[in-house]
Amino acid sequence: MKNYRDYCVKLLENRSVTLMDIADVSRYLQAEYHESLTAEQFIPAINSILAKREVQFAIMVAVEMDMQAEARNLFNKELEDILLRDEPLFGVDEVNAYGITNLYGSIALTNFGYIDKFKYGIIAEINERGKSGVECHTFLDDVVGAIAAAAASKFAHGSQIIDEE
Amino acid sequence: MKNYRDYCVKLLENRSVTLMDIADVSRYLQAEYHESLTAEQFIPAINSILAKREVQFAIMVAVEMDMQAEARNLFNKELEDILLRDEPLFGVDEVNAYGITNLYGSIALTNFGYIDKFKYGIIAEINERGKSGVECHTFLDDVVGAIAAAAASKFAHGSQIIDEE
Amino acid sequence: MKNYRDYCVKLLENRSVTLMDIADVSRYLQAEYHESLTAEQFIPAINSILAKREVQFAIMVAVEMDMQAEARNLFNKELEDILLRDEPLFGVDEVNAYGITNLYGSIALTNFGYIDKFKYGIIAEINERGKSGVECHTFLDDVVGAIAAAAASKFAHGSQIIDEE
Amino acid sequence: MKNYRDYCVKLLENRSVTLMDIADVSRYLQAEYHESLTAEQFIPAINSILAKREVQFAIMVAVEMDMQAEARNLFNKELEDILLRDEPLFGVDEVNAYGITNLYGSIALTNFGYIDKFKYGIIAEINERGKSGVECHTFLDDVVGAIAAAAASKFAHGSQIIDEE
Repeated sequence: MKNYRDYCVKLLENRSVTLMDIADVSRYLQAEYHESLTAEQFIPAINSILAKREVQFAIMVAVEMDMQAEARNLFNKELEDILLRDEPLFGVDEVNAYGITNLYGSIALTNFGYIDKFKYGIIAEINERGKSGVECHTFLDDVVGAIAAAAASKFAHGSQIIDEE
Repeated sequence: MKNYRDYCVKLLENRSVTLMDIADVSRYLQAEYHESLTAEQFIPAINSILAKREVQFAIMVAVEMDMQAEARNLFNKELEDILLRDEPLFGVDEVNAYGITNLYGSIALTNFGYIDKFKYGIIAEINERGKSGVECHTFLDDVVGAIAAAAASKFAHGSQIIDEE
Repeated sequence: MKNYRDYCVKLLENRSVTLMDIADVSRYLQAEYHESLTAEQFIPAINSILAKREVQFAIMVAVEMDMQAEARNLFNKELEDILLRDEPLFGVDEVNAYGITNLYGSIALTNFGYIDKFKYGIIAEINERGKSGVECHTFLDDVVGAIAAAAASKFAHGSQIIDEE
Repeated sequence: MKNYRDYCVKLLENRSVTLMDIADVSRYLQAEYHESLTAEQFIPAINSILAKREVQFAIMVAVEMDMQAEARNLFNKELEDILLRDEPLFGVDEVNAYGITNLYGSIALTNFGYIDKFKYGIIAEINERGKSGVECHTFLDDVVGAIAAAAASKFAHGSQIIDEE
C-alpha cells in the first residue's frame, strides 16, 4: 500500500501547521527535564512518527472532518454544529488522537492529556482560530497534540523505544 | 446538552441496523456461557449503552464518514478510496469503536476483537454489502460490533458494572 | 461475585489516602470551569466509581505491588529496584490506571494525563513520600489520579454519563 | 537504563514459554491470509517487540504476580484467590496486556481479542495448567497473547510500521 507521509505533511501545512510548530510543542513538553533543547532536535522523532500508516490515517480523517464542517457539507447537521462549536464533551476527536499516542506508550498518553488541557503554541493558536466560526479545527488540534506528545515520549525513551531490527 | 439517543437509533435504522440485530450479536457472544439466552435479553443493556453521549457521538461520526464516502463527497480522494474499498489496515474505524468498548472494560474489548475477526450476523451482512462498491460501511460495522461487545460484557458483569447511584 | 468496594476504601486508607483526598483532586481539576465547587460535591461520583469491579481490582493490584516492593518481597529484584525508585519510564503503573480512566471516556483520560504531570494534593504527597526509599507508592499515585480524573469527568458530563436503567 | 530483553526471554522460558511457542500463535493468527507461513517467519517481529522497554516491564509484572500467587505470598488474600482461580471478570491481566498491543495499533488489539477468546497453542496450554490450582498463569497467558497478536499485526503491516530512522 502507498505511504501517505508527504501527502500528510502537505495536509497539515494546508491547515497551517508545520512540522516545526509541532516540534516546538514537543520541546515545551520536555523543557521541564531538559531546558536547553531546541525544537529542531524533535524533528527526527516527528518524521519517524509520520512514517507510520495509522498516524497518517488519523491525520487524514481529522483534516477531512474539520474541512467538511467548515464547508457545511455534513449530512448530519447536529454533528456539524457540534464540530463547529468544538463541543468540549464531544470526545471523538480525542479518541482519534489516541490512535496515535497509544502507539508510543503510556508517557505519550500522559503528555497528550497535559497538552490537551494546558494548550501551548500551535495548539492554542488553531484552537483560538476555531472559535471564529469560520475555521474548524476540532479534530486537528488533538492530532497535532498527539504527534507532539508522541515525539516528546520517543525522545524521553531515547533510542530504546525504536525497533532495533 | 441534548441527548441524541433516539436520533442515533434512527441513524442506525437508516443504515439498516436494528437494535435486535445488535442484540443478536451480543447473544452470540454470550452463547458459549449461556446457551439458552435470547436476543431480547440484551435489549436493556443496549439501551443503556446507547444512552451514553460518547457512544452517540461515535455512531454519528461513523455514519457520517460512511455516507460521505458513498456520496463521493470527500475532499481527500485518497481517503475516499480507502473507505470505499474497506482497506483492512486502515485502523481509524476500529479506533473510533474503541471509544465505545473502552467504556465497558476489558471484556468488552476482547469481545470486540473476536467479533471483528469472526464476523457474525448483521456485522457479516453489512460488511458484505460494503463490498458492492455502492454502499460503504467501513466505520459502521465496527461501531455495531463495539455496541454488541459492550452489551455482552455488561451482561457478563451482571448488574454490578452499572453505576449504583 | 463479591463486591470489594468497602475493602478497597480500607486498602486506600491503610495507604493513607481518604476519599476526601481524592475528591479534592477532582475539585482542583474542575476548578477552572467551576470555581466555587467543594471537594464534598465529588464524593457521590467517587462512590459510584468505586462500586465498579474493574476499579476495585486495579486498586487491589496497585496496593499489592507497592506493598510487596516495600517489603522487599519480590522474586524479581530488577523489578523491585524499578518500583522502589519509581522509574519514570516504567509505564505499567499508568497502564493499570488506564483500566480505570478508560471506563469514563476521553475526558477522564486527558484529566489523568494532566494530573499525572502536574501533581497536586494527595498525589504530590504520596509521590514525595515514595522518594524516602522506605515507602513505595509507584502504582498507587496513578490509581488515585485515575479515580480523581474519572470523578471530575463524570461531574463534567453531569448526570448523562450515568447508565439510565 | 538497562535493557531487559534477554532477562525477559529467560523469565518466559522459566514459565515454560519459548519464542517459538509465541511465534506459532502469530502464525495461526495470520494463517487465514497466508496459509503457507511458518512460525519461524514471525521470530524477527517477536524479537523487535521484545526490544521495547514497556513490553519488558509488562512481562516482568505479569510473571511476578503469577509467581507471588503460586507461592501464596500475597498480602491480599482476596486478590490471591482471584488470581489462583483465574477469575474471568478480573480484567487487570488484560489491561496489562493492552500496554503491549496498544503499541502495535488497532489490528494488534483485535488479534488479541480473538486469541484471548479462542485460545490456541501455548495459550491454551498454560491456561489449562493454571486450572491445576498449583500453577498460576492468570497474567502470563494475556501477555503471551499480546506479544503474538502484536507480531501478527507487525507482519500484516509489512515493513511499514517499523520506524524508519
